[in-house]
This record gives sequence, structure tokens and C-alpha cells, in this order.
Amino acid sequence: MSPEQLSIDIKHLQASLAELARIGSLPSGGVCRLAFSPEDKAGRELVASRMHALGLSVHVDGIGNIMGVREGREAGPVVLTGSHIDTVATGGVLDGSLGVVAALEAVAALNEAGVKTRLPVGVISFANEEGARFMPDMMGSLFLRGDLTMEDLRPIAGIDGTMLGDDLDQYGMSGNANLSSFGFHSFVELHIEQGPILERENKSIGVVEGVQGIKWIEFRIEGSTAHAGTTPIELRRDAGYVAGAAVEFVRSLATEIENQRATVGSLTLSPNLVNVVAEEARFTVDLRNPDAKRLLHAEKKLLEFAEAKAAAEGVGMEHRSRADVAPVEFDPQIIALIEAKAESLGYASRRIISGAGHDAQIMADVCPTAMIFVPSRGGISHNIQEYTAARDIEAGANVLLHTLLALAQSE
Amino acid sequence: MSPEQLSIDIKHLQASLAELARIGSLPSGGVCRLAFSPEDKAGRELVASRMHALGLSVHVDGIGNIMGVREGREAGPVVLTGSHIDTVATGGVLDGSLGVVAALEAVAALNEAGVKTRLPVGVISFANEEGARFMPDMMGSLFLRGDLTMEDLRPIAGIDGTMLGDDLDQYGMSGNANLSSFGFHSFVELHIEQGPILERENKSIGVVEGVQGIKWIEFRIEGSTAHAGTTPIELRRDAGYVAGAAVEFVRSLATEIENQRATVGSLTLSPNLVNVVAEEARFTVDLRNPDAKRLLHAEKKLLEFAEAKAAAEGVGMEHRSRADVAPVEFDPQIIALIEAKAESLGYASRRIISGAGHDAQIMADVCPTAMIFVPSRGGISHNIQEYTAARDIEAGANVLLHTLLALAQSE
Repeated sequence: MSPEQLSIDIKHLQASLAELARIGSLPSGGVCRLAFSPEDKAGRELVASRMHALGLSVHVDGIGNIMGVREGREAGPVVLTGSHIDTVATGGVLDGSLGVVAALEAVAALNEAGVKTRLPVGVISFANEEGARFMPDMMGSLFLRGDLTMEDLRPIAGIDGTMLGDDLDQYGMSGNANLSSFGFHSFVELHIEQGPILERENKSIGVVEGVQGIKWIEFRIEGSTAHAGTTPIELRRDAGYVAGAAVEFVRSLATEIENQRATVGSLTLSPNLVNVVAEEARFTVDLRNPDAKRLLHAEKKLLEFAEAKAAAEGVGMEHRSRADVAPVEFDPQIIALIEAKAESLGYASRRIISGAGHDAQIMADVCPTAMIFVPSRGGISHNIQEYTAARDIEAGANVLLHTLLALAQSE
Repeated sequence: MSPEQLSIDIKHLQASLAELARIGSLPSGGVCRLAFSPEDKAGRELVASRMHALGLSVHVDGIGNIMGVREGREAGPVVLTGSHIDTVATGGVLDGSLGVVAALEAVAALNEAGVKTRLPVGVISFANEEGARFMPDMMGSLFLRGDLTMEDLRPIAGIDGTMLGDDLDQYGMSGNANLSSFGFHSFVELHIEQGPILERENKSIGVVEGVQGIKWIEFRIEGSTAHAGTTPIELRRDAGYVAGAAVEFVRSLATEIENQRATVGSLTLSPNLVNVVAEEARFTVDLRNPDAKRLLHAEKKLLEFAEAKAAAEGVGMEHRSRADVAPVEFDPQIIALIEAKAESLGYASRRIISGAGHDAQIMADVCPTAMIFVPSRGGISHNIQEYTAARDIEAGANVLLHTLLALAQSE
């Protein structure tokens, strides 16, 4: 069989996903496999055993990133693929897991066909991508990139009060490998979209051009309580009104600035009574844009609006940043390669920007990087109802396989 | 001394207020004298003993309204004044109490000067005006007007689970008088404004023309959760956005419709997370207007807006009425009389609409009725910080005294 004819065994891939999904499975479906938990350990042992069975050399670093390397004709650098297997508390079976399982299936396909590549192909399962138990998220890739040391990480307290270092020791997931010493040629991550665009346009493949920048801004408005019946509007200092006006303004940012997403997901009033003007309002704004300048512009307009509105109402206004992540642009050559492979394999694709964060955005600083998305039914993710049709999973895994083949220069 | 020279003894009035305020006094100031509580009983016993001391005939009806009548040359009808002495859980010392104490002081002034009036003058302390323990509020005046019977009232459960009838029996505040058999010539209630208008305009007297109508509307918006990063605006069904837009619209009702007050005091989102589009929003709208047609118009515009906005966003919208009280207009002749008395006594006054509910709005159906307001510092009421300057209390009590004299046709 020539490498061009290679394809993923979708039945085996689905069976492998199902096997992984049983670890931490929830009664109503979905999975709870929080980072550095016993379930996480069991899942990672399954991944490592599968790497061994595929003949890969397995390497584990201090934070528990696991990398299996399939030898190439040359020693390096490594063409890397993978994702993560930790989940949120009520997660789906695809977020992260698909990228790891499909990477292993791609190696299985190479093995079965006896394909030799010039460069080694590596499969990685990053530790703690979700950050659901221990912040920050994307911890494994941040460690690999050198942003964080074990001295930084071990003392971190989890939401359940345990120390990250203690759980690492107890569940034996910490190794001594220095993964970056391998050198990386490129990184490609297959992931579900976690949004509704591909499903809506009936496309199997999302060719991911980059990851949006994110700004989370938390506002606190301080006004005065007043009787809703006896206090004329001009004498009010209504914190709730300023918050409500901000919700409306935030929507206008999303419709007026190109590629801008803008959301008020959280808003609370105090004392929150029908006949009392609100003394205090707290709300958050989630701003995202793939373009750093536009993102900054949106934030500036929001702050200007909030300041002017607060001044007009005579209320106090404080704000603070709760997250600020710059946009990431993926490698144009890998983007073009993924797009070409989707086309030659006959899968409908479109370019897309990732709205969520991924290990790939950290790896983009380490080596040329891009991502492949497959549709998420109803755009649902971080939810037990997460679902992608088998034909789309197959499409994504095949595009991944042929992208890896091209990057590793098979012959 | 001619009746025109009569005036209230402000020192005695203040001492009487302070004496009443000690019953149920709170450590940090203010008072807790919930209806049908031991404190309420003690307060009412003080009022009744003061009525006896002033030579009034004292009459108590089934719900515990207490009326003391000062004989006139004719048997009736009675020129009535008074208010209530029950409070909210952390109430001030003036809300209600001022109207009862000032009424007793007016009678004291008449007694001291030996004034004989043509018509009897009655002082009433209405039961359970606040409704803080047992709903509905304005219970005593509603009972007097004949809207409610003892059979309706006795089974009502209080917020602490006790039955109204049991507390009435235990604290012995139920009598057998039929107060309406006396016949009422007119009713005048002195009360603090509970709003900021008089203070702001430096007026001692508010000549109350009526009570606003009130509509409370509770909305529930049902959308869908969605990821704030991955879901384009056009695919969202954002319950929080519709609620925020309603807050802005409600303000526009207040600025565009004459005499309209409009408040969103309560708003909650679910799941209320920074990066998740809200699935559900609940909020309340408090609409008030002294004009019934304008109030209805405001409600109609609000419902039209909410329906259109919900349809545009593709979310479900439900609403229900939580309160609907028609506006009340007071008697033009008594309004004019109060205004004239304020002027002849040299007190600055203005006409004003009551934003809060009072027993007077119930009595307006029984006999010609109006109210006198005095300023509330900072507009604060239902709060231990409730305060009115002595000179304004004196002004209000003197206007009450001379209004009663005119109504009862002194000679």
C-alpha cells in the first residue's frame, strides 16, 4: 500500500475512545477525569500501555506529559501530535481524548502499512489542559515550553485543597524526561470544534488558523439603594441600570467590530429586590478576537462606555482583568497543508478560528503548529452531551494522518 | 386662645415619639415592632392608654384597629386622622408612628385650649399596615373598608409560620367594635415622605395629591447555554442579553412617559459564569404612575418590547403579574385645604404624589381623604436611619392640627 492510500481504522478508533471513556465514566454519560486524580492516572496508564504496544519509546516529564516516539530514519526533530485526556468534572468523551486516541491510531496505521518516515513521529498526552482542578489550564504545554518549573507547580492548591505535588507523588505520574530536548519539527492537534460553525455549514473539517485572544474584565458598580416608588430617576444612583446598559453595549461590540465575540455571562445585583434600586452590580465581560488590535479596541471602547455611563449615573465603577491572553496565529504552511489534505481526501472544509484555548496555542511558540477541528453537535462541549458523528471523526483522523505523513516526509 | 393660634407642643410630641420608639427598640437604633407581636401589643397599649388619658372613647375592632373619638357637638360623622404603629423588621421610629403620635398631640392641643368642634375628631391606629409579617399590607384599613373579613384573616400564616388568628388571641388585640358604623366625614394622614423630593427642594410640607399605581411584572427568559468563545452572536439564544436590553428599555419608559417610575431591582442569570452564555434570566420590573392610563401604557410598551426582543433573540419569554394596584387620587378640597393651611402657617410646601402605599389610599374609598408629608432625610425609610428634623415634624403636625380643625369646624 502506498502511503497515499493509508487510512485510519475508524472502528478501532471508536473502540479505543470507548475504552478510555469507561475510565471516570459518569452514570448519565460523559466522564469525570480531573487532572492528577486516580481516574486521570488510570487513563494515562492506558495511553502509555497503548504507546508501548505500538512500539513507541515512552517518555514522561516532571508534570506528567507523556510522549511516545516512533523512530524516523533521522534522529529528529519530532513531528508531534496529540492533545490531553483530563476532563472537566462533567465532561464529554471527545474533548482532548479524540486528539490523543486519533494520534495513536495514526501511528497504528503507519505501523500496519510498514511506513518509514524521515522524521520521528511523536504522540503526546499533555497533563492538565483543562485547569478544572489546578490552575492554570494548559499546564503541561506551559511546562514543556518552559514557562513554569516544578518549583512553581508543586505548591499549587487544587479546588479540593490538595497540593498538586502531593497528588503527583501519590499517583506516580511524574517522570524525569526533558521532552524539549527531542526538538520539535511541528505540532498538529486534532480536536472537536466546541462550537456550532462546522455543523451549521455541514463541513467535516475545520482548518484552524489560530486561537482568539481573550480578555475577561470584571466590573463592580457601586450606587445607592433607593425606594423604587419614591425616588425620581434623576435622584437615583442605580448600579443595576449601568450594568444593564453595559450588557446592551457589549452586544454592540460583537456586532460592530470584525470577528469580535463579546459576552456578559455573569451579572448579580444587590440587594436584588423588586422595589429597591440596586446598590451594587457585579458583572463580567468576556471579549475575544483573533486580532490583537481589534481586541484591544473592543476593551478600550467598553471601558470608555462604562466610565461615561457610571459618571452620568453618579455611581462608582471599578474593573479588573481576570484573564488576558493574546491571540495566536498558526503556521501558514501547515494550515495550507491541512487544507490541501482535506481537499485531496474529499472532505468539505473551511478555515476557522478557535474560540477556546488549546495546548496548540502554547506549542505555537515552540515549533510550527496548527490544528484540525471536527464538528461538535449543537456546538456543545464541556458537557456530557458532547458528540461528533463517526464519519466526521474518521475525516479528522484521516486528515491528521496524512498531514503527519507529509510533515514527516514519508516515502 | 383662638383656634387659629393653636399649635402642637413639639417637645411633648418628640417625647411621645421617643416613648413609643423604646418599645421594640433595636440596639443600633430604629425599631422592630412587627404586626401582632408582643412589641406591637405593647405599643398599641401605650396608644390606647394615651387615648384614655386624653378623654377619648376607645374602640377596637376585630383585626385590632384602635380608634379614639373626641366628642363633637354633633354625633358624627367623624373627622378621622392617624396612621399605624407596626414596623418592618429593621424600621425607623417615624414611619407610621409619627401619624399616630401627631394625631394624639393634635387632640391634646384641642383639649388644652378647650376647643369644641362641631364634628367628632377620631384618632386611629391601623393594624398591620406594613404587611411585613402577615400579608396583605394595609390589612387594618382593608378590614375597615370591608374588603376582608375575620374569616379571611384569621387563617393567614405569617413568615414565621404562626397563624394570624392565634397571635390575635394570644396578644388580646381583637375587639368587637364596628368602626365603620361611626361614619367618617374625612380622613387625613400625616406621614414621612420616604423619598428625597421635599428635602431636596427644602420644603417642610408635601401636599399629597394621590398615590401612584403600581405594577410588578416578573419575567423569565429561557435561552440556551453556549460557549462564549466558540459561539457566534447570530447562533446565540442569550437570555442575559434580553434581560440587559430590558433594563435599558425600562429606563427609557421612566424618561419618556410623564410621571413614570420604572425600576429593574432584581435580575439573576443562570448559570452566571463568565464564559457561558446565560441559559436563563429572571428579572422584575416595578412600574409606578399616578395616572392609570399612563401606567397601563408603560406596561403595554414593556411587554411589546420584551416580546419583540425575545423573538429576535430566539428565546422563550414568560411574564406574570406580582402586584397590580390602581392609582388613587385624593380629595381636591382637602388637598386645597392642606395647601392653604401650610401657607397660612408659613411653611413652604409643594404638591407631591406618594410613591409608597398607605392606609389613606384605602380610606380614600370610604370618605374624602388626603395626606400630609414631611421630609425624609436622604429619602431613607424602612431603615433605622430614618430621620426627619424637629422643625419639619412640628410643621407637619401643625398643618395636621389646623386641617382637622377646619374639617371639624371649630368655633
